[in-house]
Amino acid sequence: MRLPSWNQGRTRSALLDFIDAADELPVEDRVAVFDNDGTLWCEKPAYPQMLFMLDELRRAVGDDPSLAEREEYRALIDHDSAAQAEIGLERIADALLELCAGIGPDEFDARVASFFERSRHPDRQVTYIELRYRPMLELLDELRSHEFDVFIVTGGGAEFVRAISRPFYAVSPDAVVGSLVGYEFARDDAGRPVLLRTTQLFGEVNEGAPKVSNIQLQLGRRPIFAAGNSPGDAEMLEYALAADGPTMALLVNHDDADREYEYEGVAGTFETDGSFTELAAGLGITIASMRDDWSTVF
Amino acid sequence: MRLPSWNQGRTRSALLDFIDAADELPVEDRVAVFDNDGTLWCEKPAYPQMLFMLDELRRAVGDDPSLAEREEYRALIDHDSAAQAEIGLERIADALLELCAGIGPDEFDARVASFFERSRHPDRQVTYIELRYRPMLELLDELRSHEFDVFIVTGGGAEFVRAISRPFYAVSPDAVVGSLVGYEFARDDAGRPVLLRTTQLFGEVNEGAPKVSNIQLQLGRRPIFAAGNSPGDAEMLEYALAADGPTMALLVNHDDADREYEYEGVAGTFETDGSFTELAAGLGITIASMRDDWSTVF
Repeated sequence: MRLPSWNQGRTRSALLDFIDAADELPVEDRVAVFDNDGTLWCEKPAYPQMLFMLDELRRAVGDDPSLAEREEYRALIDHDSAAQAEIGLERIADALLELCAGIGPDEFDARVASFFERSRHPDRQVTYIELRYRPMLELLDELRSHEFDVFIVTGGGAEFVRAISRPFYAVSPDAVVGSLVGYEFARDDAGRPVLLRTTQLFGEVNEGAPKVSNIQLQLGRRPIFAAGNSPGDAEMLEYALAADGPTMALLVNHDDADREYEYEGVAGTFETDGSFTELAAGLGITIASMRDDWSTVF
Repeated sequence: MRLPSWNQGRTRSALLDFIDAADELPVEDRVAVFDNDGTLWCEKPAYPQMLFMLDELRRAVGDDPSLAEREEYRALIDHDSAAQAEIGLERIADALLELCAGIGPDEFDARVASFFERSRHPDRQVTYIELRYRPMLELLDELRSHEFDVFIVTGGGAEFVRAISRPFYAVSPDAVVGSLVGYEFARDDAGRPVLLRTTQLFGEVNEGAPKVSNIQLQLGRRPIFAAGNSPGDAEMLEYALAADGPTMALLVNHDDADREYEYEGVAGTFETDGSFTELAAGLGITIASMRDDWSTVF
């Protein structure tokens, strides 16, 4: 059976109808993009990337205890949300970026891989690879079996997701679009070229409208299918829907407190007070209810 | 026979030895990058992209003759190299970028496609698709048949090359890294999201060291094979050579005035007075002599 973890119903039918309709298109037009956090894997109670950064902080403080005195790190170590709010997210993010500055892509990949080997989800005590959404993995495979090229377009760090995109999703690193940290070109002691991570973002954070321009800048292709779960995906979902021919946009709705979490993004992008889920439905975006549409979550 | 347009000899043997050695590597490590101008197609007497821009200028002046009075455009229309030198390349490039500002990716692609349909090479009077180097097309195919992922890393515009990368090279637009012009996210009259080209570069011109960082930023993968033809490819060639395992870097040497052109880049990147070709050979880069190594050029 196709999409076996999707319950019979309108959402599953809409997906299969779309995929069958896309069979009529030239193969090169079959382009699908997926957000990652909350769309392909669980993002609660904290983004996995934030937990990785905190892990990096613990490691750095272990090597050099004086780092714990730095204001931004102190607030994180103490879980002091008042201090964090006062310092501001931007300064905290900058301080965290420093923890991986000066290392090359291989070393960064190794640190991410090590984190995922050692880490367990705070609430469920399982490894993160077990917290991919099974219905969405099936959807990736179903699209690929219909000759779609599948890309991940994450608000998180591109390099963070690339480090696990193959084992988690069978997606090649070059098919991951995300927030980018710049590299410095340098030479090692033997004179060979090396790349070293800087502390500077390259371009904008990959959320909202920048997701759309970064899809074009990095991929040069227009998606006809997009999946997301938050207002930061809104423009990307609309962009896919507005393409020629059969198109579809899917919004994962976290409405399952028993099996996952229950929460909803605020509709900041659309400057409205309405629920983002309702608003999305009004735009022609198909809602995937975790509670009703998924027979299995993980 | 493999690589039939390559003459028997050291260069062809080195290519085949490298490709056979790479058979031992995991498939995901088989990454090859190719410069475009002068490496995959003929770049003399003028870059095809420059001829496209001049074609755009003629079209724009046809629509609005007053544009011909603008200093930067006047110098181009009159082939006035003294005036061009006085104005400077940067201002001229900025003025040319304005010709495609405000249009979307589809319209840009259509203009490039139209240019290549109408245009003939100034010296040879053939279409540009006939000016791809046949030995290099065979090399692309040979690498792909050994499960390499092949990427184009051009100093030219990414979108310009993407517009023809499929018909010319069987390379998907997402596998093209190049100089990028930024996009503005906007909405059309129906409220649908659209992307419009701006006049601003996004990041740096993709030449020299930026080729290496852009490979990592856009692809997140390390090449073990690289091909180029000029000092602007030097860092990319060195970077591929310095990877683990079997690696190879290839420099196309334009030493065939009879069948193509005879010219050599200056070795500016390495801050030396030597010939770039000699210098490259000293670094372990394999030289492909058009005259000696290629039985057929086009």
